Amino acid sequence: MAEIQFTKGHGTGNDFVIVADPDGELDLSADQIAALCDRRFGIGADGLLRVVRSRALPEGAAALAEEPAAEWFMDYRNADGSIAEMCGNGTRVFARYLLDSDLAELPAGSTLPIGTRAGVKDITRSETGFQVDLGRWRAEPGDPLVRAKGLPVARPGMGVDLGNPHVVVALASEEELAGLDLTVQPMIEPEPPHGANVEFVVPQGVKDGIGRIRMRVFERGVGETLSCGTGTAAAALAVRDWAGAAAPDFWRVDVPGGTLGVRMFPTEEGEHVALSGPAVLVFSGVVALA
Amino acid sequence: MAEIQFTKGHGTGNDFVIVADPDGELDLSADQIAALCDRRFGIGADGLLRVVRSRALPEGAAALAEEPAAEWFMDYRNADGSIAEMCGNGTRVFARYLLDSDLAELPAGSTLPIGTRAGVKDITRSETGFQVDLGRWRAEPGDPLVRAKGLPVARPGMGVDLGNPHVVVALASEEELAGLDLTVQPMIEPEPPHGANVEFVVPQGVKDGIGRIRMRVFERGVGETLSCGTGTAAAALAVRDWAGAAAPDFWRVDVPGGTLGVRMFPTEEGEHVALSGPAVLVFSGVVALA
Repeated sequence: MAEIQFTKGHGTGNDFVIVADPDGELDLSADQIAALCDRRFGIGADGLLRVVRSRALPEGAAALAEEPAAEWFMDYRNADGSIAEMCGNGTRVFARYLLDSDLAELPAGSTLPIGTRAGVKDITRSETGFQVDLGRWRAEPGDPLVRAKGLPVARPGMGVDLGNPHVVVALASEEELAGLDLTVQPMIEPEPPHGANVEFVVPQGVKDGIGRIRMRVFERGVGETLSCGTGTAAAALAVRDWAGAAAPDFWRVDVPGGTLGVRMFPTEEGEHVALSGPAVLVFSGVVALA
Repeated sequence: MAEIQFTKGHGTGNDFVIVADPDGELDLSADQIAALCDRRFGIGADGLLRVVRSRALPEGAAALAEEPAAEWFMDYRNADGSIAEMCGNGTRVFARYLLDSDLAELPAGSTLPIGTRAGVKDITRSETGFQVDLGRWRAEPGDPLVRAKGLPVARPGMGVDLGNPHVVVALASEEELAGLDLTVQPMIEPEPPHGANVEFVVPQGVKDGIGRIRMRVFERGVGETLSCGTGTAAAALAVRDWAGAAAPDFWRVDVPGGTLGVRMFPTEEGEHVALSGPAVLVFSGVVALA
């Protein structure tokens, strides 16, 4: 039975097993990843981040062709072992691991590009940790209705696409947010073809030029989570849209696992949205592969 | 920030952070233990086992006075940091740790005594791992009624005291067991003064002299768990009582986290009940104390 070294980390409670595999020699099966991510029989995590050089992966070719080229590729897997495109909280934890392991440098003011299956993501330092540029976003047409246990009536939501699909729903008060029972999956009408994450938000006004939002999220296929990076960005984009032209481009979103920042800014290809927040490495160890 | 070494292990999915502290030099606060046991921000576990020599602890004096004397004391803490008396699954994992770390030996046929706050517990090897003698037990008078979500009517249960209180309830079928909603706490009437763990069991007959039981358990203050050692023993004791004089003294209990064995046997001080099952060490690592 082979033993591997690993590190465990999290960003606002969204947690990951991190495995260094610079030369792409580690062929982890879906079953092995699911066993590692099991919270009682394994290490336990929402997903696994394999740290691999782009040149060691077929998918990494695109990451090397982009400018700036991404030396490192984040091979992100869900807790069930399935392949996933991207993970906003994961990119910050990935960056923390690269820096703490001396695999990369990130001087203030510079950018660390990270290859993902959704393209190269640019990481910069932020006040609370790291910022990742999530790129472009798109409002979806229509106002889907959301029903959730604990909400007396269906509410209209706003669809936001960030590479993955979201529906954001505004609630009336913190009491209403706290009263939601998210052990039961919310229903979306009409149902999106591949489902959607649902963000329930309570806008809390603007202070010092920063919009405030409190949020809970139900992730499709998972259930309620402590934090969802792209969901946080979707929430800020929807609340800004509802607030009208005077709304700020800086947002602070309180999720059950902590606080994240969202920022919108113009680029040549259109507006980008970026997510910032903490990234913590908790422990390192050795585990036998099943 | 001090760093400590730890090992993570489990018995039928009941999982523990194990910390070696032979000379009793590690003063872990309740907050530190709760942080270590947090499943997203820490290592994650149902509880913490501190491995300490009996002579290094005031409570250990009794463990050294008993015969056989227990060199090692299991300082068991709940995931919230509170002190707990004993943990059946924990003693097996504790024994596995002592043996794998060369801190103790257990030749076949011999006994490894372990000090706990509920007295010295004798560990022997078993087919699937280890057996722990839980000592004497007591049937509680009265037939408390149990109501649970998913059960159409209240059912009478049997109270069993194993140092901690249990109420065991027989269900009609595996379908009924599977249909229980244990996200909601079952109600016991009359309510025991300190509450009780509730075991829902489906007796499945006797095969080759071994009684079979399928069980789910709601632990007081915790919720549904994958396994509860003393609850497994209580289940076997209750089902044997209901089955009458011809019932066996050997039981196999399937819990959501695996399979445990229960055995009853006479001693000079009265009947004892013993629990056997697997104990697995999953990984070792280093973590910073908060």
